[in-house]
Amino acid sequence: MRILEDKIIEEGQVLGTDIIKIDSFLNHQIDMELVLEIGKEFAARFKDTKANKILTIEASGIAIACATAVYMGNLPILFAKKAAPNTMVDGNYATEVTSFTKRKVYTVMVSKKYLGEEDNVLIIDDFMAHGEAASGLVDICRQAGARIEGIGIAVEKEFQGGSRKLKDQGQRVESLAVITSMEDGHINFKK
Amino acid sequence: MRILEDKIIEEGQVLGTDIIKIDSFLNHQIDMELVLEIGKEFAARFKDTKANKILTIEASGIAIACATAVYMGNLPILFAKKAAPNTMVDGNYATEVTSFTKRKVYTVMVSKKYLGEEDNVLIIDDFMAHGEAASGLVDICRQAGARIEGIGIAVEKEFQGGSRKLKDQGQRVESLAVITSMEDGHINFKK
Repeated sequence: MRILEDKIIEEGQVLGTDIIKIDSFLNHQIDMELVLEIGKEFAARFKDTKANKILTIEASGIAIACATAVYMGNLPILFAKKAAPNTMVDGNYATEVTSFTKRKVYTVMVSKKYLGEEDNVLIIDDFMAHGEAASGLVDICRQAGARIEGIGIAVEKEFQGGSRKLKDQGQRVESLAVITSMEDGHINFKK
Repeated sequence: MRILEDKIIEEGQVLGTDIIKIDSFLNHQIDMELVLEIGKEFAARFKDTKANKILTIEASGIAIACATAVYMGNLPILFAKKAAPNTMVDGNYATEVTSFTKRKVYTVMVSKKYLGEEDNVLIIDDFMAHGEAASGLVDICRQAGARIEGIGIAVEKEFQGGSRKLKDQGQRVESLAVITSMEDGHINFKK
């Protein structure tokens, strides 16, 4: 998605060879025009699915999930909550996720009330590195007996292998900007 | 706002005399149609302001902030991040907030890069109880030298005094559903 790639080049901050900060338009400040375009693109890519619910994870996934929902007929959204490990998880599906940027393990939870066998889920998230967060959401869907229609990612760092891993498990992954490498502050995208 | 009050009556879960859970449409699952109506209403109430930026707090404020932004010409949104106290706060405005429902103190942070003297801020949040989160965002705006155009709250628990406190400080507070009391599971709204 060209406008997203352009924005990443203009405003993204590369830290080392594997971290990129996009605080100015997605992860802290939100550029609503761009977010709506991202939502429109996800809706177009997944329009052939039977998705009846969007699942994302707090906090940065929420804005793009909302935009996607709007372009898919106001689908309901469910955002998984992050909690410290060992928090009470009665009545919730729970899974453990290792955060790449924060270098810690946290528990991700979804209430059993809002996800079940009747659901066809579209998973949406802002970033994919090693695929930890998305794998956690996939695990939660499996616990719920819900069908996964696809995984939509705004920015994928392909070289960290998350997408490959999920595709190998049979998941459909659609990433709008795919970074193949970051060297000396220069960002290379998949053609 | 009638449709919000109706939804709270239909789906809200009253816990004791002072907590109400609205997980089914705002705080965990998100009813996008309702959220868009909330955004439209905030935009109408604050259309006379010079707001050029919306400030909210992760995670539940993000969806309604996005909806409000859409109806105000795609204003940029900034969401304050919650962190453990004593986290490094270089380059950030930081303030401490006591969470009513979680009974703990956390630090709320906003990057200095995205808020300054040039900003006219509309603060948006899902809930107001004692006004702790909104007061924290007001404090951050003051640190930044930004002007506050108003505070928009989806659900206010008037009996906990947050709105009164902020109005006494000269803030304009617009709440879409104002709960005056909760007794025996029954919710009373301000006429």
